[in-house]
Amino acid sequence: MRMVDLIEKKKDGLEHNEEELHFIIDGYVKGHIPDYQMSAWMMAICFQGLTMQETILLTKEMMYSGEILDLSSIHGIKVDKHSTGGVGDKTSLVLGPMVAACGVPVAKMSGRGLGHTGGTLDKLESIPGFCIQIEKDDFIKQVNECHFSIIGQNEHLVPADKKMYALRDVTGTVACIPLIASSIMSKKLAAGSDAILLDVKYGNGAFMKTKEEAKKLAQVMIDIGHSLGKDTRVTLSNMSQPLGNAIGNSLEVKEAILTLLGKGPDDLFQLCLQSGIQMLLQAQKTKSLQEARQMLMKVIEDQSAFHVLCQMVKSQGGNEKYIQHPELFENAKEIIPVYSIEQGYVKDLKARDLGLVSMKLGGGRASIDDVIDYSVGLILNKKIGDYVQKGEVLLYVHTNHELSSELKDEILKAYVFQNEYVEKPTLIDEVLQ
Amino acid sequence: MRMVDLIEKKKDGLEHNEEELHFIIDGYVKGHIPDYQMSAWMMAICFQGLTMQETILLTKEMMYSGEILDLSSIHGIKVDKHSTGGVGDKTSLVLGPMVAACGVPVAKMSGRGLGHTGGTLDKLESIPGFCIQIEKDDFIKQVNECHFSIIGQNEHLVPADKKMYALRDVTGTVACIPLIASSIMSKKLAAGSDAILLDVKYGNGAFMKTKEEAKKLAQVMIDIGHSLGKDTRVTLSNMSQPLGNAIGNSLEVKEAILTLLGKGPDDLFQLCLQSGIQMLLQAQKTKSLQEARQMLMKVIEDQSAFHVLCQMVKSQGGNEKYIQHPELFENAKEIIPVYSIEQGYVKDLKARDLGLVSMKLGGGRASIDDVIDYSVGLILNKKIGDYVQKGEVLLYVHTNHELSSELKDEILKAYVFQNEYVEKPTLIDEVLQ
Repeated sequence: MRMVDLIEKKKDGLEHNEEELHFIIDGYVKGHIPDYQMSAWMMAICFQGLTMQETILLTKEMMYSGEILDLSSIHGIKVDKHSTGGVGDKTSLVLGPMVAACGVPVAKMSGRGLGHTGGTLDKLESIPGFCIQIEKDDFIKQVNECHFSIIGQNEHLVPADKKMYALRDVTGTVACIPLIASSIMSKKLAAGSDAILLDVKYGNGAFMKTKEEAKKLAQVMIDIGHSLGKDTRVTLSNMSQPLGNAIGNSLEVKEAILTLLGKGPDDLFQLCLQSGIQMLLQAQKTKSLQEARQMLMKVIEDQSAFHVLCQMVKSQGGNEKYIQHPELFENAKEIIPVYSIEQGYVKDLKARDLGLVSMKLGGGRASIDDVIDYSVGLILNKKIGDYVQKGEVLLYVHTNHELSSELKDEILKAYVFQNEYVEKPTLIDEVLQ
Repeated sequence: MRMVDLIEKKKDGLEHNEEELHFIIDGYVKGHIPDYQMSAWMMAICFQGLTMQETILLTKEMMYSGEILDLSSIHGIKVDKHSTGGVGDKTSLVLGPMVAACGVPVAKMSGRGLGHTGGTLDKLESIPGFCIQIEKDDFIKQVNECHFSIIGQNEHLVPADKKMYALRDVTGTVACIPLIASSIMSKKLAAGSDAILLDVKYGNGAFMKTKEEAKKLAQVMIDIGHSLGKDTRVTLSNMSQPLGNAIGNSLEVKEAILTLLGKGPDDLFQLCLQSGIQMLLQAQKTKSLQEARQMLMKVIEDQSAFHVLCQMVKSQGGNEKYIQHPELFENAKEIIPVYSIEQGYVKDLKARDLGLVSMKLGGGRASIDDVIDYSVGLILNKKIGDYVQKGEVLLYVHTNHELSSELKDEILKAYVFQNEYVEKPTLIDEVLQ
C-alpha cells in the first residue's frame, strides 16, 4: 500500500477500509508517513468528508494508537465531560464537585491553556501546593474516596491525535467535522469512562459557527460513542460571550467557589446544573430530570459539593484553606476599572479578544513555555443584554503592571453596542443523545 | 502574513493576490514554508482551482524563483517545443533538425528519463562522445552556427517547480490543471525562447484522460503565454500508443535518423511535420501552411535536416559517423521475437506498460541513480489498427539477458485485440492558439 494512492483515493471521494485507515494512522504515528502526505490527505478529507463508517474506524485507529486507561477499579458508572472550549470556562471546578457530591465518580484529565483559552490545570495550580501529577493508583484511590480528581493529561494516550492536531493547526484543516469528531472522541474513549457528556459550543468564538454545524458535529460524535457502546450525550450551547464574570486563573477559582456556595453568576450555575442533570441520568443515579435537579440543588444548599472541592484540593496536596477563605489568594497589585465610552445594549462581547487580553496581562500563554501570573485577569461588570450608560464600568482589570492604551482599546472594542433591546442569550439550547 | 491563513483562504475558495502568491512561492523556495503547508495548499487548489489571474501570477512567481535564460544573442525568433511526455517520443531528434534546417534556431534544454518515460538526453548519450553539458556561450555559438543544440536542464532555472513537483508527485496533487499549467509554463518561460509550441497529449497513458481536459489545460497555458507576450500554440494529440516503432535509447536514435532520411515510421514523421509547420509559422518563416509544409519536405528530400543532426552531434563532441552509419551502434546480444497468441485487430497498445518493459530490460531508470543500457529496447511490429494472426510477430525484444516469462507476459498483456475493424488513430487532432 502506498500513501500517495490513498491520498488520491480520498481526493476522488472514495471510501477507505479498515486496513487502509490502520496503514495511515499507524504509519503516521510511527513516522513512516511524513507530515506533508498527512496534511494533503486531511485537506482532501475537508473537501470529500468521511462516511460514518470511516469516521468510526478512524476514531478507533486513533484511540488504539496509544494507551487505553483502565478505570474499572473505580466503583460506579464513570461519566466524563468535555467542552469544545471557551473563555472563562471554569465548569469542571463547579460541575465536578456537584456530581461527585451526588455519588458520581469524576476521574478527569485536563489540559493547560494556550492563546486565548485558559486551562483547568493552570487554574488549579493557582491554589498553593496543588499537584496535578499523581500516580494512577493514587488517582483511582482518591476517586473512590471523595469521587473527584483532576490530573494532567496522560502523555501516552492517543499519540495519533497529538501529532494530527498539531499538524491540522498549521495547515488549515481544523474546521472539519469528521476530523474534529474523531479527535475529541478518540481522547474521550481512551480515557476509560463509561459515559460521555459533550458540550458543543457554537457562535463567533467557537469552531462551529452555526447551530446547524454544531448539530452535525454532535450527531457524528454520538454515533461514534454508540458504535463503541458508550452512552454519549451532547449539550449544544451558544458561546457568544465568556462564561461567568471572571477570566484569569485564581479569579476563576474564586468564582467557582462562590458558585458552589450558591453565590456565583447565574449563567455559570445554570450551565453546571443542566450538564449535571444529564450526568446524573447517564450515571443512572435517577431516571427523572426533576429528581436529578433536586439532588444537585441539595448538594449546593447543604454545601456538600463545596466540601468535595475542599477534600479534593487537600488530597492533591493543595492548601484547602484557600478554598475555605478565598481572600487568602494573592491579589493583583492594581484593580483598574474600564469605563464605557458608548451607551446602549451590549449586543456582542468578543470572548476570544478578552481571552487574549487576559493572556497579555500575564494570565495565559502566548507560547507553550510562558510562565503564568495567577493573580491577573478580568472581572466583567457588563455582559450581553445589559444596558450600559456612558461612563459606567464595563469590567475591572486585575493587573501587576500599568494598563497600556492598546490593551484598553482592545477591551473597549470587545464590547459591541446597539440601541435596540438585546435579549440575554440562553446557554444550553438543546440536549442530543 | 501567515501561511495557515492563506491555506484557509484557498480552502474557502477565495482569490489570492500577487503579494500572497509571492509570499508562498518565495517562502517555499527559501525553506520558510514547510512541505506540509505547501501540500495542504496545493490540495486545496485541486478542489477550489485557481482563477486565470492567479494562475498567471503563480506562473510568474515560479518563473522568477530562479535564473531566467537570456538567449537574445541568438539571431532570429527562437521557438521552444514541449511535449507532455510519451513512450517512444524521439520527436526532438527529428523535429529539431527539420526546423533548424529551415533556419529556425532551436536552443533546447531536455531532461532524463525516469520510470516508463525515456529522456532525450539519455537517447543522445547513446551516441559515443556526445556531451550534454556545454558552456552557455558555446551553446549560443552552436545555435548561431548550425541552428540546433540540445543540452541538459540548467539547474538554476525554476527551483520552485523542482520543489513543488517533487512534492506533488507524492501527495496526490499532480492531476490539477492550474498546477500543471504553471509548472510547464514557468519552465518554458524561464528558458528564454520567443515562442512556444506545446504538445498536450491525452488518453490512457497521459495526465489528461479526455480531450476536453486536454483542451482546458491547453487554453490555460495559451492564456499564460499570451499574458507574457509569447506566441503560444498547442497541438492536441492522442497518446494511445508509443510513437514510432522503436522504444529504447540507441534504437530510437536510429529511428530518428531513418525518419530524417524519409524512411521512418509515418506517425512519427507526420507528427514532426505538423509540429514543424506550426513552428515555422511561429518563427515567421512564412505565413502559409502550405509553404511551411513544402519547406519541411524539402529539408528531408535534400537531406539538409539530416546534416543538421550530423553537425550538431559533431559540435557537441559526439562521433558523427554513428549518424552517417547507424549500423555502428552496438546491438543488443539477442533479438527475440514475441509472437501473438491471439488474433484480431489491435484495439489498444498500452504505451506505459511497454515503457516499463523497456526500463526493466535496462533501457530506463527505476530510480534516479540507475545506469542505462543504451542498446536494449523494443521494436514494434504491430500497432493499433493492424490485423494480427495468431503466431505473427507483435514486436522484437532487444536484450542482453534472457527474456523472463513475466516480461513476456507483460508484453502480451499490453496488446488488446478485438474482432471488429479498428481505425488507425490520428495523431494531432487540433491546433489551438
